[in-house]
Amino acid sequence: MAKKELKLHPVVAPSEIVVVSAYDEDGRADACTLAFYMVSGLKPLCVTIAVNAEKKRKTLKSMRRQNAFTLAFPGTDQIRETDYLGVESGYNTDKLKNLGWTVSRAKTVHAPLINEMRLSLECEIIHTVTIGSHIHITGEVRRILADESILNENDNIVLEKLKPIIYDEEQLRYLGIGTKQGDAYKTGAALKKEMAGLKEGSL
Amino acid sequence: MAKKELKLHPVVAPSEIVVVSAYDEDGRADACTLAFYMVSGLKPLCVTIAVNAEKKRKTLKSMRRQNAFTLAFPGTDQIRETDYLGVESGYNTDKLKNLGWTVSRAKTVHAPLINEMRLSLECEIIHTVTIGSHIHITGEVRRILADESILNENDNIVLEKLKPIIYDEEQLRYLGIGTKQGDAYKTGAALKKEMAGLKEGSL
Repeated sequence: MAKKELKLHPVVAPSEIVVVSAYDEDGRADACTLAFYMVSGLKPLCVTIAVNAEKKRKTLKSMRRQNAFTLAFPGTDQIRETDYLGVESGYNTDKLKNLGWTVSRAKTVHAPLINEMRLSLECEIIHTVTIGSHIHITGEVRRILADESILNENDNIVLEKLKPIIYDEEQLRYLGIGTKQGDAYKTGAALKKEMAGLKEGSL
Repeated sequence: MAKKELKLHPVVAPSEIVVVSAYDEDGRADACTLAFYMVSGLKPLCVTIAVNAEKKRKTLKSMRRQNAFTLAFPGTDQIRETDYLGVESGYNTDKLKNLGWTVSRAKTVHAPLINEMRLSLECEIIHTVTIGSHIHITGEVRRILADESILNENDNIVLEKLKPIIYDEEQLRYLGIGTKQGDAYKTGAALKKEMAGLKEGSL
């Protein structure tokens, strides 16, 4: 296969979109949209976000001040609002109020939960580090809150009901999730067994 | 909407799957599959992965020794092989050889490029930090290599051709990407303009 070297650019290829929220110094809820997010630990359960520290970001300032934030997963039925939270600045206007969205106080940390979000994590900041242009903020997940409407009978989140937004930076568009292509772990375990059989056979 | 508190568990909801690769002390290529990945900086261009440091991971040891790794995006047509790289250990067997996959030397760092991957990043480790169970490894992206078959006429990566694997930990399955649901930035900018118009109108 012919390979080509591409210019250096962020390869999200793709990434899911999240909305982070925090209280400002006046107790007002800020929120902004991010694509640089990952689960980053199991003991304790952590998530990490990377935020551009070279730009004036009100939500970044607020979350650092409070040492806490909530992180939520918007759905494809909320693309307009989510995209707006990414392009407008909290220094200009009250974005959540403009959208008609409402917040509740998180239970475990001092941060606002956006009521319209179907899945939210309450996070306490336990580590930050600035690497070049971006600050990496690691939050310990203290509580997970989900709408009952997105859960199955075992309380698993059903992605087809959550409808997460997949961000494609290559073509500046949002995608939905697709259909099932395989089983995790089972597929590889079967191949592992097959390989072991082949090895024994060759002895 | 009725909200429910869920037990603490990693919310990938969803995440894309990546394969990282490094040379071991004998110069043999190791590879393993990860779901905890994000783009984490623009200046310099960085990616961060989180790896469980409590488990014996050969690829982790190798990448730390060489201070370099490659990170690649497998496609849904490579789910069996990708899942296998996640469930088998490099301490037991030569996983890449078993798959019949081949490697080339990366150009900018001392790490192996898996030839069968349609999109790869060459990364030099510039920061590591251990937070609880996981080590966060930040690599500066030194080179991006793509198959011509996944590019459009502007050298943008076409996700429908890359066919990234979306991991759903809630139901232990792999999904493909879905269809376009909206334009990034344009959608929010239109709403921002609309809001400004409303405000002027209300004066």
